[in-house]
Amino acid sequence: MTFTIMGGSTQQGEAAIRNYNLCIVGFGNVGKAFVALLDRKTQELRNRYGVGFRVTGIASRRLGWLAKPDGFELQKLLAGDFADAVNASDIRECLRLSAADAMFETTSLNAANGKPAVDYLRAALEMGAHAISANKGPVVHAYQELTDLAAARHRRFLFESAVMDGVPIFSLFREAMPAVEIRGFRGVLNSTTNVILECMESGMSFDDAVRQAQELGVAESDPTDDIEGVDAAVKVVALTNVLMEGKLKIDDVRRQGIRGITAAQLRSARSTGETWKLVCSAKRKPYGLISATVQPERLKLDDPLAQVHGTSSVIRFETDILPQLIITEQNPGLETTAYGLLADFLTAVRSS
Amino acid sequence: MTFTIMGGSTQQGEAAIRNYNLCIVGFGNVGKAFVALLDRKTQELRNRYGVGFRVTGIASRRLGWLAKPDGFELQKLLAGDFADAVNASDIRECLRLSAADAMFETTSLNAANGKPAVDYLRAALEMGAHAISANKGPVVHAYQELTDLAAARHRRFLFESAVMDGVPIFSLFREAMPAVEIRGFRGVLNSTTNVILECMESGMSFDDAVRQAQELGVAESDPTDDIEGVDAAVKVVALTNVLMEGKLKIDDVRRQGIRGITAAQLRSARSTGETWKLVCSAKRKPYGLISATVQPERLKLDDPLAQVHGTSSVIRFETDILPQLIITEQNPGLETTAYGLLADFLTAVRSS
Repeated sequence: MTFTIMGGSTQQGEAAIRNYNLCIVGFGNVGKAFVALLDRKTQELRNRYGVGFRVTGIASRRLGWLAKPDGFELQKLLAGDFADAVNASDIRECLRLSAADAMFETTSLNAANGKPAVDYLRAALEMGAHAISANKGPVVHAYQELTDLAAARHRRFLFESAVMDGVPIFSLFREAMPAVEIRGFRGVLNSTTNVILECMESGMSFDDAVRQAQELGVAESDPTDDIEGVDAAVKVVALTNVLMEGKLKIDDVRRQGIRGITAAQLRSARSTGETWKLVCSAKRKPYGLISATVQPERLKLDDPLAQVHGTSSVIRFETDILPQLIITEQNPGLETTAYGLLADFLTAVRSS
Repeated sequence: MTFTIMGGSTQQGEAAIRNYNLCIVGFGNVGKAFVALLDRKTQELRNRYGVGFRVTGIASRRLGWLAKPDGFELQKLLAGDFADAVNASDIRECLRLSAADAMFETTSLNAANGKPAVDYLRAALEMGAHAISANKGPVVHAYQELTDLAAARHRRFLFESAVMDGVPIFSLFREAMPAVEIRGFRGVLNSTTNVILECMESGMSFDDAVRQAQELGVAESDPTDDIEGVDAAVKVVALTNVLMEGKLKIDDVRRQGIRGITAAQLRSARSTGETWKLVCSAKRKPYGLISATVQPERLKLDDPLAQVHGTSSVIRFETDILPQLIITEQNPGLETTAYGLLADFLTAVRSS
């Protein structure tokens, strides 16, 4: 692809800009970080990619469905000022009133069936908008359906932020590593359990460690899904089904959470320079099968999986081309997750 | 991008295959590994990407310029059987007789001026072929010229294998991480010095360690460029000029090789759980400047840069989006380098 650097203020430059209307569904931390990132990158997107945009739709449980066909001011959105918006009654009316070219879905995970996110994404594609999600639910419950629908409508269903924040994992293999067979992977992909185990290593009880993780804003008020490994299992299913052509369901993942890990086990590991992590793994088996596991594992300190602390995460892929390719992200923030949405948006509009 | 799975043997499937003529310049270890990989992936390229190919040109210092318009048999090429080939007198005649759609350049590095590789790549682009290189020389000496020429001819100049074998670094940022600003990087990117330092850590003298690296096939018969950090400096220039819009020349890299490292320094490091590596680094400075360095550094054992052994390598990027993104490749082989050429080929033909 060739990028033409355009003078932002010249008539000629402006003429080359392609403009897109964006609709953001879910306006919590990730949605707000995405708007802030759009604001910061506005000029770069114009100059480097010839891409302009307006946010013409926004929705959340609290706000309802809002549209503003001439575009919200991003700074006002961030300040919570939604004046002059039109109220829509549902996702489809919101997409129509906002004339959305791309919808960004950042609602919270429903591990059981991916709803209502799946419905929102389906609506977007049916109405001709790219469907971009930061949510694992739709990937696990409707990857094939939404991918096929997107192809039929010449739009894209993309979800880079669903795993490892916005670090390119899905796009790495899709765009940069074609014709590679992934034989398996191992990773530490859940921050909450990572933080809890580290707090326990430093001497805290399990309950105190959970409270600490909650105070740090890492664990949710009900951290059960993290502690029991459900969140990690959902990520394993997303990775295997997209990257390894698996057909797994969440219950197919052999899963053990961290509740059984004792202070004595952690101390014993430390004494030999080892550490415990909740490890996600998958491996290709004969007959097209994939085995997938989430479980606490005792790791040697020079294992790349042992090196991640706090909200950092790591994944090690075994492929037919390269015995081990390891991707590590250290200290991601909300902007990293928001970036995945932006990268997906650019992928979608660069390819269509 | 949508992939249509095509039945390899049906009329309909075959009709959808786009066919390309390939010309391979340089038929040493990498060139041979590339032909072997093409052979192994032939059916996958047809089925998954609708891409067919024939190798219609091949050249090396020993063979001269050979063309076979109806295509060499890959197995015969690997067996050293070049029967029925036409002799061409130079690169241009070879490209013309082979009707090349893509040229793969795998000649050895000329750090001083990138020749003759630059000339071959220029010829390929001028004659309408994609120019794909496993060679750092052309990236360092002619990146802008060849990129501009490729754009003008609607072809691609790609070189993923030039740094970290075939692991996606250039394509990672080009394809999967758009609109990211790289603020700097640190990496261990030279295998020869890595192996020598490890041998010295185990008690060998410098000269014995060099001989050991040569026996392992890692160091060349004249290992000066590796030992003095020239190879690493060339990689730093390639990375900064492509990924950080630098305009560095090799002499702009502050460079110190490993010859001065003593057994005592290595022992002292080991005694505190540390290790020495030849570290490549670059950092954005005010006024659009970039500082770049190659030097031996003493690293703590939990530093990701300390974790790579033998021919493995690692790079840690600092970006505006993510504080640290780390890519590690463990135990790459020749096939990994060959894969970079294949990935570039697919990138070129998927985008044109």
